[in-house]
This record gives sequence, C-alpha cells and structure tokens, in this order.
Amino acid sequence: MNQPRTHMPTPSHTYTLEEARAFDAQDPLHSYRSEFMIDNADLIYLDGNSLGRLPLRTRERVSQVVDHEWGSRLIRGWGEGWFTAPQRIGAKIAQLIGAQPDEVIVADSTSVNFFKLVMAALAARAGRPLVVTDDLNFPSDLYLLQGALRLAGAGRRLVRVASPDGIRVPIEALAEAITPETALLTLTHTAFKSGFIYDMPAVTALAHRAGALMLWDLSHSVGAMPLDLNAAGVDLAVGCTYKYLNGGPGAPAFLFVRRGLQAELLNPLWGWFGQKGQFDFSLDYDPGPGLQRFLVGTPPMLSTAAIEPAVELVLEAGLDRLRAKSVAQTEYLIALWEDWLAPLGVALNSPRDSAQRGSHVSLGHPEGLRIDRALIEDMAVIPDFRYPDNIRLGIAPLYTSFADIYEGLSRLRRVLVERLYEKYPVERPEVT
Amino acid sequence: MNQPRTHMPTPSHTYTLEEARAFDAQDPLHSYRSEFMIDNADLIYLDGNSLGRLPLRTRERVSQVVDHEWGSRLIRGWGEGWFTAPQRIGAKIAQLIGAQPDEVIVADSTSVNFFKLVMAALAARAGRPLVVTDDLNFPSDLYLLQGALRLAGAGRRLVRVASPDGIRVPIEALAEAITPETALLTLTHTAFKSGFIYDMPAVTALAHRAGALMLWDLSHSVGAMPLDLNAAGVDLAVGCTYKYLNGGPGAPAFLFVRRGLQAELLNPLWGWFGQKGQFDFSLDYDPGPGLQRFLVGTPPMLSTAAIEPAVELVLEAGLDRLRAKSVAQTEYLIALWEDWLAPLGVALNSPRDSAQRGSHVSLGHPEGLRIDRALIEDMAVIPDFRYPDNIRLGIAPLYTSFADIYEGLSRLRRVLVERLYEKYPVERPEVT
Repeated sequence: MNQPRTHMPTPSHTYTLEEARAFDAQDPLHSYRSEFMIDNADLIYLDGNSLGRLPLRTRERVSQVVDHEWGSRLIRGWGEGWFTAPQRIGAKIAQLIGAQPDEVIVADSTSVNFFKLVMAALAARAGRPLVVTDDLNFPSDLYLLQGALRLAGAGRRLVRVASPDGIRVPIEALAEAITPETALLTLTHTAFKSGFIYDMPAVTALAHRAGALMLWDLSHSVGAMPLDLNAAGVDLAVGCTYKYLNGGPGAPAFLFVRRGLQAELLNPLWGWFGQKGQFDFSLDYDPGPGLQRFLVGTPPMLSTAAIEPAVELVLEAGLDRLRAKSVAQTEYLIALWEDWLAPLGVALNSPRDSAQRGSHVSLGHPEGLRIDRALIEDMAVIPDFRYPDNIRLGIAPLYTSFADIYEGLSRLRRVLVERLYEKYPVERPEVT
Repeated sequence: MNQPRTHMPTPSHTYTLEEARAFDAQDPLHSYRSEFMIDNADLIYLDGNSLGRLPLRTRERVSQVVDHEWGSRLIRGWGEGWFTAPQRIGAKIAQLIGAQPDEVIVADSTSVNFFKLVMAALAARAGRPLVVTDDLNFPSDLYLLQGALRLAGAGRRLVRVASPDGIRVPIEALAEAITPETALLTLTHTAFKSGFIYDMPAVTALAHRAGALMLWDLSHSVGAMPLDLNAAGVDLAVGCTYKYLNGGPGAPAFLFVRRGLQAELLNPLWGWFGQKGQFDFSLDYDPGPGLQRFLVGTPPMLSTAAIEPAVELVLEAGLDRLRAKSVAQTEYLIALWEDWLAPLGVALNSPRDSAQRGSHVSLGHPEGLRIDRALIEDMAVIPDFRYPDNIRLGIAPLYTSFADIYEGLSRLRRVLVERLYEKYPVERPEVT
C-alpha cells in the first residue's frame, strides 16, 4: 500500500478526513472491515487491543455450536470436533507465531497457562534459584510468578529489571540481570502500557547463553505482527485470543512448548483432559503425549469454538500485510499527535521507532483518566486507560480505518481544547 | 405427584408405554420439558448427567451476549455485567447447595478449582501429612490430588479408601482412615459410576472430629437433589455446571468456601482477576476480599453467560420437586430392569436404596460397551458407558420423561434379546 509515511507532518501539511479516506481507499485490507459487526458508524473503537470486535462468521459459528452441536447432537458433539478443538485451533494459531502444529494448544486462561509453564520450567531447572522479568510485564504475570516462586520453595527469587523511562527496557539491563543462577527469563513481548516490543531473537539468545529457559507472553503481539518462535529458538510462550485475534470476551488462551521440551515438562495441574487414555479412568495419573498433558479440565466449548473462525480471518489477511498496515496507522496516529496534541501538552508514551512499537500507542496527559471518560461518554470514542496517565489507543489493522484514527484524534483534540473533561471527577473506569 | 412406586413389579404387572405416559401426565414438572430444545422426538437421551440439554432461554441469552454485549457494546460489556458474572451466577448456585450468596463463585473448570482448593487446604493444615479420599472418586480429582501432594512437599501422602463392591464405601471404612494426621477429606458426593450418595452431614462431621477440612465434589449431585452445605458445616466444595445444571459443553465450574475460612485460604494461582484493585495494576500481588481471590484470569464470557438462565430454570422448578421426580424415575427404571433385564443377565451396579442413589443408574453387562454402541447407532438411545461394564443411564428430571425411560429400556431389552450388539467390535467410545 501507499504508506502514509510520505505524509509525515511538515510545516505546510494540513491533515484532513478526505486524506484519511484516501488512505483507506488504497488499503488492500480495507475490505476486511466488512467481516466485522459494526452497527454504529459514528463510534470510533480504538480498543481492539483489549477486546477485538465480533467477526460476522463467529456469530454463525456460535449459533451452529449452540443449536446444532449442543442442542441437536448433544454429547455426540465431543466426538464430532469438540475433543480435538484445543489441538486443531492450536495448530492454526501456530501458523501465526512461527511454530509447528503440535507445539500450540488452546486451554484455560492466559494466566492459568502462564502458571503451568512457569511451574514446569522451575521443575526443569531445579538447581537454579532465579527468575528474571521486568517491571513492564503484565501484572498478572508478575503475580503468578510471585505465587509460583512461593510454591516452588525456599531460596527461589524473582528479579524484576526496572525500565528507566517506563517505556522500554534496554537489552543491556536484561543481560546484567541474567546469570548462571537464572532458571527462567520471562517477558511480555509487546508491553501492555507503552507498546514497546522486545527483540525476540536477541533476548531469547541472551537467556539461552546463560542456560535459562525463555517464556514469552505474546498477548499484545499475536495477530498484529509476524512472530517466529521457532526461528528464535523460543522454549515457551503463552498468549491471549481475545485481543488482536478477536476470539471474544475472555476466550480461552493458548500455550506453546517447543517440541524438544514437551516430554521433559510436566503440567502441575494433573487433570483428566491431560491424562493418557482419559476414558480408561485409571486411578493413577499418567500424562498424555505431547501438549495434551497441558490440558486440565473440560474446555468451555462455546468460548473455545468462537476462536476458530476469528483466527482463520487473521490467517487470510496475512500477518505481513497486517503489520504493514499497523505500522502505517501507528505512524499516522503519531503524526496527528505531533501536529495536534503535542502542542497541547500530550506526551508520547510509546516508542517513536516503529520497529520497537506494537499496534497500540499510549498518549500521556495528567488528566488522562478524565479525558478518557469524556471521550467515551461524550465523543463516542473508545480508547482505554492505563494508570497513571496513559490514554491507550489500539490499532486493530483488520478493521481499524485511517478515518477512525483521524476522527478519534480529532475528537480527542476537541476534548482538550474545549476542556470537556473537567466536568468528570477522578475515578476508575471498570474496563479491561 | 402420584409416585410410580406403587407400580413396582408384581408377578401380574405388565409395563406399558401407556402407563409411562400416564405418569408423565401426572408429573408436575412435565411442562419444563418444553423449555428445552428437543428436535428429534424419537431420540431417547439418557446422558443429561454428562451433558445437559440446551435450554431455549440459553439460546436467546447467548445470542444477546454475542450480538449486543460483544458486537455492539464491545469492551463496555465488562462494566455492564461481565465483571460481576462470577459472583452473580455464583450467588444463584448458592441457593441450590445451601450456601450464602458470597460463598460461591463461578470460575475455570471443576479440575482447576479443585486444585486451587486442595492446595489452599494443604497450606492451611500444614502440619498434617495425610489426605484421605476413596477409589470411587472421579479420576480427575485423584490425579489432581496426586499432583498437589507432589507439589506440597515431602512426607505428604494420599490415602485412598477402597470400595468393597465398586458401588459404595461404608462410612466405617472412612472413619478408620481418618486420623489426627489428616489435613483433608475429599470425596465426590454422588459417585460418577455407581451413583452412590454419601451422607454429607455424617461424613463431614467425621472429618471435623479429626480436625480435618472437608472438600466435596458436587458435580454429579448439584441440580438433581437438594444439598445443604451450611447445615452440614462443609468447608469446601467444587461442582460442575454442564451436567444437571445444563450450562453447556465445558461451561465453567463453581467453587464454594465457607465464609469463616475465606480470609484464611489462599489461591495458589495468583492471577489479576484475584487481585485487590485489579485495575491499579500494582506490581505486587495482594489478594482481593472474599472469594474474588479464587479467580485467576479473564473468564470465558460466552460459556459463563450460558450458565445463568439454565440455573434459573432449576431454581424455578425447585430441588425438592426435582428430587422427588428423580427418585420416582430411577425407581421406575429399576423396576423395568428387574422385570425385563435382570433375567437377561444384566446387573444393577447402583444402590437399590433410593436414599443412597443419585439421579443415574448403572446397569452392568459383560458386553456393556458393544451394547452401548448398538443403542446409540441403531436404537436412537443415548446412554453413556463407564469401564469396565457400566451402561450408565442418566435421569435429568427437568426434561426426562417416564416415556423416555420406558422406551430406552425397551430398546435396550431388544438389543439384548436380538443380540444386536454382536456386530460391533470392542472399542472405546469417545464420549465424556
């Protein structure tokens, strides 16, 4: 596509809605927008990084699962596609992250999967007391690490590398923290606040040079950019399906274990779906082959089935094209910020270099929380907010248009210029 | 209702479909059948104890969640009922099990919840090395116990009380196994194979006399009979929502923690949904109040929402009426067995005394697996099968009719008399 990079601000350039629409007309992915339910053309949705929109084909799929597979086929549904769904959908997600089909499985929540892999990694590196992470990591991962280290026994300790600016962590700081005592390095690939992306191959190599295992949380990356876990030699990963994969609210997550590690690692949650010969109902646990052992209980099938058509849509669009559009759109958003918002005291809390930036951009303002509320309640713009001051704007290149970005930032400018946020008290929004 | 107990077999009684239909006509719950999707009147479904039928109101609810709450409201859905769903639906389930509204929460799978409560109980009774269970327990619970004891450290041990007949465990055998060294007694209330029901108050009192905690798995009981956890002083429980509660395939499970224990117990999975002030995103775990701390990751909302209308239906019907009908129907089934099937070599693998029997009946035959297959493939009857020889017939009193039971057993008799199972090889059915 014609990259709007050529329209980066110059003293003479004036941004217009017409120009944004022209970008949309040139966008080879623009037709994918019609694959989603959009029932309110005036609503500017910039939160697809929190909850992706509803694909129309998912609506059909959920109806089929409810009416036909459950309603009509009843228990037979298990033999007709439900049992194999974790592996089948996992194999499709594998194509998005550079993994083999048998290296990815859909199960539980990202948090539960993260716990499984951390506990498995600690057991596999029993002689090493340290786990290294950073303070840009998603808090749920930090909490689960704290709990896992407590369970794993005395002497184990979490090392949390600080970000000097709240936006990024230099690889040198990680390198200093990793020692031969490190069992595991675990990081979120795209930081949930700033959108900073780590260099996956370089960081993974750092862990491996010290003999540590590497566990990535891909939640804010998968579906928005190409990933190649196999090329980087990654050991372990987890990821979310309800953000850029559009799997639906709270849709089950996935986990990845490198093939060569699968026989060695043990899920700490010994459930019947992980049991070899599950329907033998033998009384002693014997973990199933491959990733089956990382299943626990019965998967929630309505929420699981909804993931599949959504992932297929991302595969059809292609990650290279999605990433190119995402970069063009975050560049465009930043250009508008620089021209319109920086002069009004709004900071850029994301990396300026697109190679280090995921598909969301955080803008900082001391009144961020009230601005966010004014956008939602008065301006029909939905961003989200992350403490202390981040107005987080998500680009979902499958359906976000350049016109959305133009309109969203234009309305944000109006909230600032007219101080429309001042009528709101400071309080917390209950959104994820 | 007019209990068909009065029609127990006598040398002169002839069972007829007309008689079964007359029982249905007298059944005060018969109209609830029309609340469910039944698109094939010839199909006899006797597996509602494995996967309950689809309530018509659930279809409507799932459509609303998909189209309106996700499709239209998008991320705002979290503030408009999704965040509170685990507690709100938990409070409704609490009414079914004799618990306070804040003692039950919906989360994860039964297996994951069981792991959380076992680990929490072991930490709370750290000085006691033993956990007592029985070999009638659901294998997933046994596996999870084995894994949890391995994590909990050296010296901890599982004591598995044997059933002398594969049908029941005498309370005296439990009493012998429980000592002052016992941290936890955990049992399935209604045994998944035989349908045997433990005396909840008596067994709970046994655990408490030894200073142990009591954890019940209610999966095969909840929705089919009144339960009163508070009256029995129960500490902990888990249960399934996709059997007699008709929550849909793999619908999330629930867990119960007695109010007085909630502050003392800690979930080993420290996820962000369990965090106090979840959206502060502080970097250190601080467990939320009450049962919130037993949440982990984002709940799968399509599968979670489907539970609510289904539970409401059970509440409307009333557990006393459901239990009365269930007892009448299992008695009727056993009467048909005695008259028609016992002479053909079929055993009763469930308790004869209805006070000790849940809502399913297991019939034993050496060719059980092939008989089961012939029923499904040739006779439009869906039972399920549990090794080694149990043809398990589930009565779901919300929608199972007396005519279903008559027809189901009549077709089973035909399979035996005409030896219709002989054309099938011995292999495993893939049903749960």
